[in-house]
Amino acid sequence: MNLKITLFEEKIARAIDELFAEDQPRTLFAPARYTLSLGGKRLRPLLTLMAADLFGKEPDDAIDAALAIEIFHNFSLLHDDLMDKADVRRGHPTVHKKWDANSAILSGDAMVIEAYRYIARVPESVLREIIDLFSNTAREICQGQQYDMDFEKRLEVSEPEYLEMIRLKTAVLIGCALKIGAVIAGASRHDADYLYEYGINIGLAFQLKDDLLDVYGDPETFGKKIGGDIICNKKTFLLIKALKNSGKSQRETLEKWLSASDFDPEAKIRFVKKIYDELNLKLITGNLIEKYYLASLDCLSLISVPEERKKDLIELSENLMYRKK
Amino acid sequence: MNLKITLFEEKIARAIDELFAEDQPRTLFAPARYTLSLGGKRLRPLLTLMAADLFGKEPDDAIDAALAIEIFHNFSLLHDDLMDKADVRRGHPTVHKKWDANSAILSGDAMVIEAYRYIARVPESVLREIIDLFSNTAREICQGQQYDMDFEKRLEVSEPEYLEMIRLKTAVLIGCALKIGAVIAGASRHDADYLYEYGINIGLAFQLKDDLLDVYGDPETFGKKIGGDIICNKKTFLLIKALKNSGKSQRETLEKWLSASDFDPEAKIRFVKKIYDELNLKLITGNLIEKYYLASLDCLSLISVPEERKKDLIELSENLMYRKK
Repeated sequence: MNLKITLFEEKIARAIDELFAEDQPRTLFAPARYTLSLGGKRLRPLLTLMAADLFGKEPDDAIDAALAIEIFHNFSLLHDDLMDKADVRRGHPTVHKKWDANSAILSGDAMVIEAYRYIARVPESVLREIIDLFSNTAREICQGQQYDMDFEKRLEVSEPEYLEMIRLKTAVLIGCALKIGAVIAGASRHDADYLYEYGINIGLAFQLKDDLLDVYGDPETFGKKIGGDIICNKKTFLLIKALKNSGKSQRETLEKWLSASDFDPEAKIRFVKKIYDELNLKLITGNLIEKYYLASLDCLSLISVPEERKKDLIELSENLMYRKK
Repeated sequence: MNLKITLFEEKIARAIDELFAEDQPRTLFAPARYTLSLGGKRLRPLLTLMAADLFGKEPDDAIDAALAIEIFHNFSLLHDDLMDKADVRRGHPTVHKKWDANSAILSGDAMVIEAYRYIARVPESVLREIIDLFSNTAREICQGQQYDMDFEKRLEVSEPEYLEMIRLKTAVLIGCALKIGAVIAGASRHDADYLYEYGINIGLAFQLKDDLLDVYGDPETFGKKIGGDIICNKKTFLLIKALKNSGKSQRETLEKWLSASDFDPEAKIRFVKKIYDELNLKLITGNLIEKYYLASLDCLSLISVPEERKKDLIELSENLMYRKK
């Protein structure tokens, strides 16, 4: 990464480090602080600062909005982990394991409200537009999480349904993070919308890449165990595509493993992956990722700022595309 | 109640009836709609309309804000019931019983966001002020709920701690509902603040009245079973005061009943109420309620509108004070 991006990342890290440091009662705010301290890529607030920078605005003018986005994102992880009964996040126990379910519920609620406290600090001239975008996005994320939970209870989910779910659950917040930075920087409506669409395409590619890496990542560099999604029957793009494209005997094998309650995890990963291989899903998924990546570049090319200014965003999305974890 | 109030209540009921009627997925929005349909007093949105009316504004100008307040209030009931493991609300199963815990969590989250979508519809000239008031209030309500949960794990809670907790958990939303109506109606800063303080005092009196009615309500008119708070060791004002004022033998009796895990409910209510009687808690609590009620009238008297316009609010608070359920 280049120096400017590193400075943005440090600014974000410092600001996050100050959040919820003193607020009382600690029983309410310590879990919020803990969740935010676990780090992760902190991609979304970075995108807000980069979007503001794209249109010539200083990062300090967008930092509150960037924090709002990151607080909201971490709230959604906190509640999703509770709902999904996920005990570990980024190598650390999740809030409902380290504290309890009630702490996870109420601290998450406090985080949503805190996100709104930060987003409301944007300049008055853009407050209504940004609040509305933020709320519509937040609403879509809840819808996405609900579809995700609903899909887990169904065997058949279509490819369009899946893509719409990940658009809602993942892509819209990336689009929103970028567009808010653009609006704060006074970008034209067209430019702000193109940047939003850039974010949607990057977000879709990003989630599909996650699905792909779970199966085809390099165990040396992936960071998590390969095949985690396969073990827990997670309805990823690969599984949905496999259920649709499989022949009779492949389908029977898949359904046997999906319904098995007592199994050798390594064997399950091996057999399911074999079907994915036979169905050429690495290439098919890779092609779809490439399609969204190219679409994102198209959106970026439509934005009326000198190409030179766009290179940070292009570099960032290349890194996301060719990442190994 | 007078005709104007009845019209306000009908307007609120119609508007609530349209909420979440068509939104998808239904798995996300049906629990939100269900919670709001259970009714209750709908006091808070009524206060917003009455506050706007106090300063000469039409109810239609404040209805979106009133809905935001009621949606937020119902969100907090929904999540509180889940955290408190309360299975019944207003005679109906709570969301986590009728659906499940995940539905309660995610539908509640969607309701917070919806509340913000509605509050953001106020006129642009007052948007920042109202969003900030709303967020600060929402944050205080989370703090109040956390203190309430923390207090349940402690034997000793002081009277000031308890009063601060109910201020946060209950009174601030009543103050906020009123002040938002006033701000929308263009009231002066002083008048809006006096109305807020009126609401705080009414809210404190309201919660203390709840505590009192649980023990000294008329079983014929109360609607719920008398002594529910005693059965589950709820730290009400009466219990806190009893633990503080009790002599040695009363204290021993209280602690015995508080720690009993296998007991006759009627006997527990009888013995605890006997101590409350001996300690004169009906009068003591009644006096404190009266104190807050009189303070609320003082606040109202400071507001610079003709006394004639205040009579609806005075009538409403009298009804709340002298209510039997």
